[in-house]
Amino acid sequence: MPLIDLPLETLREYRPDIDEPADFDAFWAETIAESRAAARTGIHCEPAETPIRELAIDDVTFPGFGGEPVRAWLTRPRGHGDPLPVVVEFVGYGGGRAQPGERLQWAAAGYAHLLMDTRGQGGTWGGGHTPDPHGSDSATPGFMTRGIADPHDYYYRRVFTDGVRLIDAVGDIPGADASRIAVTGGSQGGGISIAVAALSPAVRAVMPDVPFLSHFRRAVEATPAAPFTEITKYLSVHRDRIEATFRTLSYFDGANFTPRIHAPALFSVGLMDEIVLPSTVFAAYNRLGSADRSIEVYPYNGHEGGQMHQWVRQARWLAERLAAVPSGERMPVAADT
Amino acid sequence: MPLIDLPLETLREYRPDIDEPADFDAFWAETIAESRAAARTGIHCEPAETPIRELAIDDVTFPGFGGEPVRAWLTRPRGHGDPLPVVVEFVGYGGGRAQPGERLQWAAAGYAHLLMDTRGQGGTWGGGHTPDPHGSDSATPGFMTRGIADPHDYYYRRVFTDGVRLIDAVGDIPGADASRIAVTGGSQGGGISIAVAALSPAVRAVMPDVPFLSHFRRAVEATPAAPFTEITKYLSVHRDRIEATFRTLSYFDGANFTPRIHAPALFSVGLMDEIVLPSTVFAAYNRLGSADRSIEVYPYNGHEGGQMHQWVRQARWLAERLAAVPSGERMPVAADT
Amino acid sequence: MPLIDLPLETLREYRPDIDEPADFDAFWAETIAESRAAARTGIHCEPAETPIRELAIDDVTFPGFGGEPVRAWLTRPRGHGDPLPVVVEFVGYGGGRAQPGERLQWAAAGYAHLLMDTRGQGGTWGGGHTPDPHGSDSATPGFMTRGIADPHDYYYRRVFTDGVRLIDAVGDIPGADASRIAVTGGSQGGGISIAVAALSPAVRAVMPDVPFLSHFRRAVEATPAAPFTEITKYLSVHRDRIEATFRTLSYFDGANFTPRIHAPALFSVGLMDEIVLPSTVFAAYNRLGSADRSIEVYPYNGHEGGQMHQWVRQARWLAERLAAVPSGERMPVAADT
Amino acid sequence: MPLIDLPLETLREYRPDIDEPADFDAFWAETIAESRAAARTGIHCEPAETPIRELAIDDVTFPGFGGEPVRAWLTRPRGHGDPLPVVVEFVGYGGGRAQPGERLQWAAAGYAHLLMDTRGQGGTWGGGHTPDPHGSDSATPGFMTRGIADPHDYYYRRVFTDGVRLIDAVGDIPGADASRIAVTGGSQGGGISIAVAALSPAVRAVMPDVPFLSHFRRAVEATPAAPFTEITKYLSVHRDRIEATFRTLSYFDGANFTPRIHAPALFSVGLMDEIVLPSTVFAAYNRLGSADRSIEVYPYNGHEGGQMHQWVRQARWLAERLAAVPSGERMPVAADT
Amino acid sequence: MPLIDLPLETLREYRPDIDEPADFDAFWAETIAESRAAARTGIHCEPAETPIRELAIDDVTFPGFGGEPVRAWLTRPRGHGDPLPVVVEFVGYGGGRAQPGERLQWAAAGYAHLLMDTRGQGGTWGGGHTPDPHGSDSATPGFMTRGIADPHDYYYRRVFTDGVRLIDAVGDIPGADASRIAVTGGSQGGGISIAVAALSPAVRAVMPDVPFLSHFRRAVEATPAAPFTEITKYLSVHRDRIEATFRTLSYFDGANFTPRIHAPALFSVGLMDEIVLPSTVFAAYNRLGSADRSIEVYPYNGHEGGQMHQWVRQARWLAERLAAVPSGERMPVAADT
Amino acid sequence: MPLIDLPLETLREYRPDIDEPADFDAFWAETIAESRAAARTGIHCEPAETPIRELAIDDVTFPGFGGEPVRAWLTRPRGHGDPLPVVVEFVGYGGGRAQPGERLQWAAAGYAHLLMDTRGQGGTWGGGHTPDPHGSDSATPGFMTRGIADPHDYYYRRVFTDGVRLIDAVGDIPGADASRIAVTGGSQGGGISIAVAALSPAVRAVMPDVPFLSHFRRAVEATPAAPFTEITKYLSVHRDRIEATFRTLSYFDGANFTPRIHAPALFSVGLMDEIVLPSTVFAAYNRLGSADRSIEVYPYNGHEGGQMHQWVRQARWLAERLAAVPSGERMPVAADT
Repeated sequence: MPLIDLPLETLREYRPDIDEPADFDAFWAETIAESRAAARTGIHCEPAETPIRELAIDDVTFPGFGGEPVRAWLTRPRGHGDPLPVVVEFVGYGGGRAQPGERLQWAAAGYAHLLMDTRGQGGTWGGGHTPDPHGSDSATPGFMTRGIADPHDYYYRRVFTDGVRLIDAVGDIPGADASRIAVTGGSQGGGISIAVAALSPAVRAVMPDVPFLSHFRRAVEATPAAPFTEITKYLSVHRDRIEATFRTLSYFDGANFTPRIHAPALFSVGLMDEIVLPSTVFAAYNRLGSADRSIEVYPYNGHEGGQMHQWVRQARWLAERLAAVPSGERMPVAADT
Repeated sequence: MPLIDLPLETLREYRPDIDEPADFDAFWAETIAESRAAARTGIHCEPAETPIRELAIDDVTFPGFGGEPVRAWLTRPRGHGDPLPVVVEFVGYGGGRAQPGERLQWAAAGYAHLLMDTRGQGGTWGGGHTPDPHGSDSATPGFMTRGIADPHDYYYRRVFTDGVRLIDAVGDIPGADASRIAVTGGSQGGGISIAVAALSPAVRAVMPDVPFLSHFRRAVEATPAAPFTEITKYLSVHRDRIEATFRTLSYFDGANFTPRIHAPALFSVGLMDEIVLPSTVFAAYNRLGSADRSIEVYPYNGHEGGQMHQWVRQARWLAERLAAVPSGERMPVAADT
Repeated sequence: MPLIDLPLETLREYRPDIDEPADFDAFWAETIAESRAAARTGIHCEPAETPIRELAIDDVTFPGFGGEPVRAWLTRPRGHGDPLPVVVEFVGYGGGRAQPGERLQWAAAGYAHLLMDTRGQGGTWGGGHTPDPHGSDSATPGFMTRGIADPHDYYYRRVFTDGVRLIDAVGDIPGADASRIAVTGGSQGGGISIAVAALSPAVRAVMPDVPFLSHFRRAVEATPAAPFTEITKYLSVHRDRIEATFRTLSYFDGANFTPRIHAPALFSVGLMDEIVLPSTVFAAYNRLGSADRSIEVYPYNGHEGGQMHQWVRQARWLAERLAAVPSGERMPVAADT
Repeated sequence: MPLIDLPLETLREYRPDIDEPADFDAFWAETIAESRAAARTGIHCEPAETPIRELAIDDVTFPGFGGEPVRAWLTRPRGHGDPLPVVVEFVGYGGGRAQPGERLQWAAAGYAHLLMDTRGQGGTWGGGHTPDPHGSDSATPGFMTRGIADPHDYYYRRVFTDGVRLIDAVGDIPGADASRIAVTGGSQGGGISIAVAALSPAVRAVMPDVPFLSHFRRAVEATPAAPFTEITKYLSVHRDRIEATFRTLSYFDGANFTPRIHAPALFSVGLMDEIVLPSTVFAAYNRLGSADRSIEVYPYNGHEGGQMHQWVRQARWLAERLAAVPSGERMPVAADT
Repeated sequence: MPLIDLPLETLREYRPDIDEPADFDAFWAETIAESRAAARTGIHCEPAETPIRELAIDDVTFPGFGGEPVRAWLTRPRGHGDPLPVVVEFVGYGGGRAQPGERLQWAAAGYAHLLMDTRGQGGTWGGGHTPDPHGSDSATPGFMTRGIADPHDYYYRRVFTDGVRLIDAVGDIPGADASRIAVTGGSQGGGISIAVAALSPAVRAVMPDVPFLSHFRRAVEATPAAPFTEITKYLSVHRDRIEATFRTLSYFDGANFTPRIHAPALFSVGLMDEIVLPSTVFAAYNRLGSADRSIEVYPYNGHEGGQMHQWVRQARWLAERLAAVPSGERMPVAADT
Repeated sequence: MPLIDLPLETLREYRPDIDEPADFDAFWAETIAESRAAARTGIHCEPAETPIRELAIDDVTFPGFGGEPVRAWLTRPRGHGDPLPVVVEFVGYGGGRAQPGERLQWAAAGYAHLLMDTRGQGGTWGGGHTPDPHGSDSATPGFMTRGIADPHDYYYRRVFTDGVRLIDAVGDIPGADASRIAVTGGSQGGGISIAVAALSPAVRAVMPDVPFLSHFRRAVEATPAAPFTEITKYLSVHRDRIEATFRTLSYFDGANFTPRIHAPALFSVGLMDEIVLPSTVFAAYNRLGSADRSIEVYPYNGHEGGQMHQWVRQARWLAERLAAVPSGERMPVAADT
């Protein structure tokens, strides 16, 4: 698994041209407005069935894209009176929110932790509980090319909107402090984090790990491993839809979202990543609107990135920015950056 | 690629128990009745754009499942006055009807040839033009587990019904003889052929090659290669849905359709097939209701089966049963078996 | 990944002959006695550096084989006055105890959780902090053949003894209830659990998942994937050491330990496991001395087994046997089985 | 399957130095003259056994290299009185002319279509019926290194000459218009097309798809997949024959044939082709002697190239240059470019 | 690499039916007589260029099949006055006799060692110097299907005859004792050894290692790895030549040669051999006509078998049967068995 | 297996910066001095059990690192009175000295040949007989990361010292000429040769083939295949030990040893080597202190390099420098370069 992408010094300065559609902001504003308007219910939480007792876990349903019900787990320390800072996490490609209690670190570190299900996914690992009630035209197996003929039909329009709508819903969770929300996630979860951070002003910190879904042109040309290759396969069959496909993708490109992010940002990247090439991560990172930003580089890691090391790095970084409320002693809350 | 399944002599007698739901016939009768009722338009044919001139090719749209538009190619000899016998073909997994003119053999042999698009597919090879406007719950990439939680939502309910509805539409094609319809197809196309032959009394001959989609229990336990493995993967994640999944599949099992087929049948099987195990083919074949049946065994072939050899075999077999109408001389039409 | 081992009904009754050396008990009694005698220090705990705050994590050092220092993480609910039941966990092949806070479920469910480092390992994933200060004769890369020429030199003699010595040390942990100890672990961790449960009468429940290290004869002949294949490779080179090698292994065979276990036991197995064949798991399971035993069968899973589903199963099973002490309400402690 | 070759803009200008032996033209003139002189019989056609009736198929035998009998299929529209333009097609590596009726598009588009068997091949797919009655010195399995020690013994000397001799024979086919001959083929068939177009002045158009057999130096150094790797393997064993081997290959290099082609040319290339690197295709294409030339670039395809899309492209391009004679209406014949 | 063939106890008794053509002996008698008659020259030896000095190496050319020149290396101790016992060795698939001096063990053990080149081979490893001046009909890449349509044209007819003719030539080598000849070789070399021992009464001992080329029916059905799979591939294309192919192979089946061997025989087999299945080795071994026979079983080895361990075993076994003449002291020659 | 490294012309001039620790010489001087002081016994030779008779083989034990016993084979021509020049050979990764008699070429060419066992190895191929009685901290399976946390504990400190100590011992072998010692070996054996030639002034010629263990920074970043990837894996887990790891490796880097070599040197390299990248070989070669040096380049070979071709090249090169003493005639000894 050797280095197959650009050298690190080049990556640090990598600023490729990336097409941005003129109606990018309008497209998203309209998308989100429509989904907000479509919501018929609010967020619903009920205690999850689990042997976990030291932390409280709720099974959450909230209105996502088009008002459609989307599931999440809410995991929190027990018995805190004050509103807690919130970490919203999105999961990687193919997985779902899985079982309650699989991810306990953020709650154990003193946050209200929301883990959003990814609609339609969860059949590859982890398990999911949220349908995606939208069909598609001819598509390659997987989620990358569903509805790709039109940006309005594209799968990730629904997923990113679900994420934005979950941020919207935080204010309705008792004990959650909607003024201190961070988003995070690895791979696809990182890609969703970036989109949501750009589209939700309420997000106060963004921590994408080895984020997927940026700089599609390069990704499709140079990535050896799935799932970007779903698009390559699609274009190898639909030879007449190349430009239309990249036009659709330009509405969903992480590198078009990052200039719209101004919250503090902590990225990570594995230089030996064959699933999400480092150049696609830096293409997004180098365009961030955030003044407070850093990227953790793992030179000998692939798509696993920094794993628990990165989580520790995030937890420290976030505490300085959002301030965790520990269970025993109370710590002073850091001012927003 | 050695033999990995049962020995041929065992396969010839292989008759495993296969669960059949009590309401199997009701389920399908209702499904088809509803789709027939939902049709708002008839079949529509218009000349396809193609450099092919010696044969006529039409781009066909017909109302499929739920009345939804489904595409096909109709390829015919030019300038025949009499109604032609009809071969309806379904395509393999991942592919679509592709370009007009890719499959000319049946028309060149004197048949009206209908090649049905498979809804949603065509993103892996060939290209497709028929959307599947139905979403799904958590599913494994691919089509095998879409909507698998309920037989009414299962993807193949829509596909099989599309096939039945195409048979329904043959009578509206000028120059096509609706009393002489055969169905055929390889792999998934063979699986669809079997279902359609069981569900459409108008089908007078069925020729499935290396047919997919039979004896799911064994397929899921013993098949090394995709796409049956999509179900294995799904069950490895959704550990609590095993029996529900097989219950859904029992409505779609080729081995539950074959006892309902009484038309002449010509199957084929490759004994080294690692994608569709021979035992799953024989499980369906050995239960056929047809008195006139045979199976071509290719002992050293995998999933490619007999290829052109099998087509020649089919063309001869079918001429004896449906009678091709050759371009120059007119041949006596064989009586229906 | 189809089924490659015996059918489930055969596995349920699978009782192969497995050689047991006459001095098996003496070998282990002497081994443990020597290591107990060699200990120069007691267990040492100090708070680990971690952002986790809702649970308490200690960095533990205890005297293992030959009195050599071995590391572990101790994770506990905060602020409980009463002694807690204890879960001792061993990790899978190649991994180490990793970072503090990676496994929080047991502590979050109300147990004192000890996660033992595996000496010398941790270079493949997770990271480890315990040296194995013993060299070896000609060995195949990996740990499976280190010192295999003599049972006294064999690598797992040291590892299993480390596990026994950790059980010995539980009594010295304040707040841990040494009369309520369970052992668990997946794969290699399951194999260690079995050995430790057989060698430590203090163990009151044993929960091995997809346990490795049983029925070496079959494993070496029939397992397609690493790490049992390290032994196959070794024997392919050291063609004159076949019987000596299996003699050494007979002192470490899970199927020779299980008859010596009388505590309640909950096993798990994946029927599509190509790393630990189900027949080797059942060979050990079917010989258990425990009256209270069960095995969770995952028919469509490989070596990942039941994952979080199995943990939930274990947590419920264990609560009935050891009784978790929840953080809020106090539950009645179940009597030992 | 990412891009592994040069970027497209570089490929468009790629003009590497390629050795051309001084006696290149003499070598081929002598080779062809000898084979013409050796012919003892003319072309022989007899109706093929096939269920195809709308088109006429003949089994053809003609004198090839050294007068040795070579087989082909001739497929034509039925019942045209006028001489038809002719498409001669060569097949890909490992295949033979296969069964009559496998390739009907050209005939269905109004051409007399000749599909030449490749001597000795047809054992990997398709089947062949032409022996290659020449042995060889030490060679790597496959056809690429047979007789490579001397250009006179090299396998492709015989194959290319067979192609030239088939062009010679067209004049003897009743109803075929020898003044309107095009050559085509994919991969190896493209490589043969190039050689034949350079060696036969009667060829009026050349349409090689993803053509194999050009720029051997680069191909051998940089191609990851078979069959160029047969030469790499050969040179890894015969370390003392490197220069002699490339000297032999210089007589067969497509890039040495293209400057000798002046007929209109339509090439194609897949930029993700790992079997025939795009740089080897452009090395040949960029040196074409033809004023009327174009290359269809498939950016996301591998060695499959454009498939049916490219055939449609070819059929339109060729109609403008050779003029197809459609079955119903007669079209004006385009003048040669 | 687990066991994939029958258990050892079954193999020991494995005696499948194997077709033997009625004219088997006549076919071979005629073949050899013709080649003897065709020889125009005798054996020719000249000193090889090599840095080896302690042993003498000659470059040998002898008349093989059809009198065609075949190469070998002759390696001998220097300065022995008495005629030496002779070991004739044949090499494995794809290789040639390679460089002088690569195999020194037999000469260093006191034998005159002849290493025969395999005509046409040597392009995969080792290098060869003997052409096979015979072409073939449609064949799969490799040597296994060349000329397979007729036993008289089959590639191994020429190779086996070369071997017999080398035994014929031993009497003309000064210092070689033609009354003490053994044959040996691994894999294909073992297969040639078996044929030659059956066809040459002068062979006094036969030592095939993991011998290839026996029990073709089973080999073709059950072998996962090349080169038996060349035949499987051929039959997957040439679906109409299955029985003709096996008829040809029956003239070359090791299991038809072994009943004709009466000299002492030492075989070897690797039970994990995926290239030459143990059942094909035992099929040949169990039918040996030899009273003095044994087989060395390597239970954990694949196709590499016993390597140097087996050579030591052979050298000891052969010394008891042929008697090596050591360089210093003279040992008593063992009587022929 | 295409070229994946730099072009040859770049390699010829490749001179990367490579860190050298300030105490490099002191580290090694101390290491060797300690091991010399620790030796309690001298070299011990006894005749090996082997069927080889024309050459004499001894089983050698000598005091290596820390005085620990290390094994070797000594193979010599029989019956030479004069002291022989000596070739000391080290073996490749994973192997041991194997059986006596496996490598006869050097002895057959007139040298006393010592083949050193590699401590702890021999479990992957060949077999070994020398323990490495030193444990290690958390390490990746294999030998590359054992003790890598500290240069004093690193595995290759012991191995290189064993090699130096074998050179020390040559003077005590009767009939060996300690003034004419060459070192050689392939891959790891080449890496050891380089280190030993730099550390032992008694070495008069060095012939490393495709030498491993140079320019670790590049090797770890760019090598696709094992065993350099063991370090990559280690650093992917131990993310906090990157600089410490490369610091340790700088004491063992072939490119830090070659400037300290002044004896004549013959290297080899395969340009398609994916195990030892050519750039790492040239990084070491281009820094050689030797005036008399050359490198044999195999452009189409991988890690197998030149095999017997390279040995012939070495034997001729060495004869000009050390002078082999042939068995029959005596040749004049070439002066040291």
